[in-house]
Amino acid sequence: MSKRAKTAGTSSAGPRGRRSAPPAGKAFVWTKRHLLGLDELSAVEITHILDTAESFREVSTRSIKKVPALRGKVVVNLFFEDSTRTRMSFSLAASRLSADVLDFSAKGSSVAKGETLRDTARNIEAMGIDTVVVRHSQSGAPHMLARCLDASVINAGDGQHEHPTQALLDMFTIRRRLGGLAGKRVAIVGDIAHSRVARSNIIGLRKLGAEVVVVGPPTLVPSAIRSMGCEISHSLDEVLGEVDVINMLRIQFERFGSNLFPSVREYANIYGLNAERLRRARRDVLVMHPGPINRGLEMTSDVADGPNSAILQQVANGMAVRMAALFLVNQGDQA
Amino acid sequence: MSKRAKTAGTSSAGPRGRRSAPPAGKAFVWTKRHLLGLDELSAVEITHILDTAESFREVSTRSIKKVPALRGKVVVNLFFEDSTRTRMSFSLAASRLSADVLDFSAKGSSVAKGETLRDTARNIEAMGIDTVVVRHSQSGAPHMLARCLDASVINAGDGQHEHPTQALLDMFTIRRRLGGLAGKRVAIVGDIAHSRVARSNIIGLRKLGAEVVVVGPPTLVPSAIRSMGCEISHSLDEVLGEVDVINMLRIQFERFGSNLFPSVREYANIYGLNAERLRRARRDVLVMHPGPINRGLEMTSDVADGPNSAILQQVANGMAVRMAALFLVNQGDQA
Amino acid sequence: MSKRAKTAGTSSAGPRGRRSAPPAGKAFVWTKRHLLGLDELSAVEITHILDTAESFREVSTRSIKKVPALRGKVVVNLFFEDSTRTRMSFSLAASRLSADVLDFSAKGSSVAKGETLRDTARNIEAMGIDTVVVRHSQSGAPHMLARCLDASVINAGDGQHEHPTQALLDMFTIRRRLGGLAGKRVAIVGDIAHSRVARSNIIGLRKLGAEVVVVGPPTLVPSAIRSMGCEISHSLDEVLGEVDVINMLRIQFERFGSNLFPSVREYANIYGLNAERLRRARRDVLVMHPGPINRGLEMTSDVADGPNSAILQQVANGMAVRMAALFLVNQGDQA
Repeated sequence: MSKRAKTAGTSSAGPRGRRSAPPAGKAFVWTKRHLLGLDELSAVEITHILDTAESFREVSTRSIKKVPALRGKVVVNLFFEDSTRTRMSFSLAASRLSADVLDFSAKGSSVAKGETLRDTARNIEAMGIDTVVVRHSQSGAPHMLARCLDASVINAGDGQHEHPTQALLDMFTIRRRLGGLAGKRVAIVGDIAHSRVARSNIIGLRKLGAEVVVVGPPTLVPSAIRSMGCEISHSLDEVLGEVDVINMLRIQFERFGSNLFPSVREYANIYGLNAERLRRARRDVLVMHPGPINRGLEMTSDVADGPNSAILQQVANGMAVRMAALFLVNQGDQA
Repeated sequence: MSKRAKTAGTSSAGPRGRRSAPPAGKAFVWTKRHLLGLDELSAVEITHILDTAESFREVSTRSIKKVPALRGKVVVNLFFEDSTRTRMSFSLAASRLSADVLDFSAKGSSVAKGETLRDTARNIEAMGIDTVVVRHSQSGAPHMLARCLDASVINAGDGQHEHPTQALLDMFTIRRRLGGLAGKRVAIVGDIAHSRVARSNIIGLRKLGAEVVVVGPPTLVPSAIRSMGCEISHSLDEVLGEVDVINMLRIQFERFGSNLFPSVREYANIYGLNAERLRRARRDVLVMHPGPINRGLEMTSDVADGPNSAILQQVANGMAVRMAALFLVNQGDQA
Repeated sequence: MSKRAKTAGTSSAGPRGRRSAPPAGKAFVWTKRHLLGLDELSAVEITHILDTAESFREVSTRSIKKVPALRGKVVVNLFFEDSTRTRMSFSLAASRLSADVLDFSAKGSSVAKGETLRDTARNIEAMGIDTVVVRHSQSGAPHMLARCLDASVINAGDGQHEHPTQALLDMFTIRRRLGGLAGKRVAIVGDIAHSRVARSNIIGLRKLGAEVVVVGPPTLVPSAIRSMGCEISHSLDEVLGEVDVINMLRIQFERFGSNLFPSVREYANIYGLNAERLRRARRDVLVMHPGPINRGLEMTSDVADGPNSAILQQVANGMAVRMAALFLVNQGDQA
């Protein structure tokens, strides 16, 4: 386990901005060892992940859903917050690449015995791990791990900071359904202030040239978010007719009953998506949700299961995007 | 993931009834995509599963316990009730067929966040799953999943309804030890009213021509069960001498202390199997139990560990039967 | 699954005592089916495990960390005490040998339903298991399993009795760092009375010719331990300058507040390792700890992360030692 050079933090890539086409020629070589957030990636790098995901997407539809790309590599899911769905998605993605996968659950572990995150991670790494997929309630935990580990680190959600693979699968889904991202107008609806999904989406969409309007009650949409390059609206009805994508965030029940918003039902009346609202949207508007849905709250069942919904495609695309992420950080390893 | 034709519900198979021989010639082709219960299978189909299990039985005794039959396929254990034993059996059976296995535990998952069973299953399926093995406290849950999923569904126990692989492994064990099922007389002893194991056994044994007598106190043996083609007795001592098999159901402690039966100890005195009772049974009577045993209650240790006991063989045969089930529903897939 | 001869309990091996060199020629053949404790192994057998681990060590540093040695074999982790770290280490070691691994957790299992350890183990074995790795709060549990199972049993810690793979990885680490074990002087510091790690280390180190001095307060170091062939000291400061290795046991907080020792902080002041104490030790003294460390208690962070520390190497070497253990008990199987 030789100490690898930790120089991969700087982008090797070209121009930022309104560009979602793959990099021209063979000039681009992926070099990053970690996937910590979209904030640290260039437009070219993000596009490269999406292009790589495109080539993996087909694997999941085969009868034999396996490629030997990461055979003999070990991926550890280091989840300090419960998330069956994301963990399963990473596990399946890793085993589809023929990697060995190990789940570390913080419960009943040495973490419960007071061990620090750094010690836990370095001990697991010492067993001979190639990639650590980490979810943690503290913003920046994956970055800390990236500094103290030789293994590659993938951020599977850190505090209220970033959830890069969720944003990448959302962008991948939009790109496939709408043919591209540049110039598309995307509404993100809900608790913007506390959502790492929203943050990563805004960053990624802006880098690839999409327009973003965030929608929610003033208590959940801080005006400072304008600095991320997005517009703000407090009325879903106002933006309905002018967007290509409506990405509904999951209601976080723990915010309600607090002073941020009076009641879940009232929120759903104003910001929920139903058939009537959908009729006033563009005919081919894409309806998205990171799941799990609260049916009848963020949207009604007819919308969730209707032709505009891309929700199950998001899940399927998540496999391709996570395969791409696991593959690339391990490739960057060899570069 | 194209929507597959959902026509597999009807039996392609021949005559029901007293026939446990394999289908003649090459006429029979397995077509079912699901294994939901023995009620929906013909005698020929049940026999085909047992014959397939026979061919897989040998694999578990090899030094290298693996065949490539389901390489690249993904099996998910979707267990909403705890059952380490059944889950491990399915996991091992799947990995013995070279499938990838993923455990979904309802705890700490999106189910806890209020997601419906249908949404949970469809989201997992969207990750590219081939087979869902489901255990659920609600009767009919596997059938519901079979209707809304493209993946194959295997019922690993639903409410008080069916537990088909348990019954199949019981029948497989009887067939191997006694040379056949037709004409054999089987006693099933215990809480017949609430047992999915009893239900599936009665259905399967009757279809393959065995006689079934259910034994237990009147409160736990409803007389309506006669409509399933079995006899009723309230005295183990009465039927002891005339049966080829005694299948002892596990005592479900939660029924006692209720008004169904006064005390566990009194129940054990009347319906428990011990050396004295075994002496009055046929010399080669087969003693079975789905496990885990309450030693000293359903039977004494000398009986459980004695030469008439087939209990550990049941467990071993469970591997073969579950390999057959996993193999066939995935084959039916390709048919 | 034919009943194998249970004759492997006696050592086939040569002279006990001060000898850490590998056995001469090809005379030595490993025959044991179980690894229950170092007490039952000869010096030659212990050395053979360490030599085998040496040959596996390299595998963990490869890009493709896998050898096909145990392909098609099944290893079950049967942990009745929580230990994420040891369980992960065994899981990774097994899958690095291409075995299939299954975790059995006592929670929510048939154990919770009152099943005996013997029944649980025999039922799992009936599914076709090759090796059972068992951790149990009761001393002797692995030996009991070895008597009633055909599968190989590896003790992953039983009560206050033995933890052989931990001692083996400690010895492996000393041998690699110091070039050998015979004649080396090793201090084991802490709660000697209740530590299975200490017990296994004392036994193994003595068999390979190392000197052992156990260090701790009188309440935690029973004088009877002298019968194991080690010296006793109640002062870390006294032995500091004369030992080649300082192995710090983890503080077991549940002992404090009891009448065994007044306070954790006072204990740490007297028996903790810090930079000042390290200066008074030999320049190349090896600092070890079985983990997880309580930083600031057993040792300060500068010591734990300093050049004398072998703590992460212990973890890495644990992989090699556990691969060797899994490999050998399965080989003994074929002999």
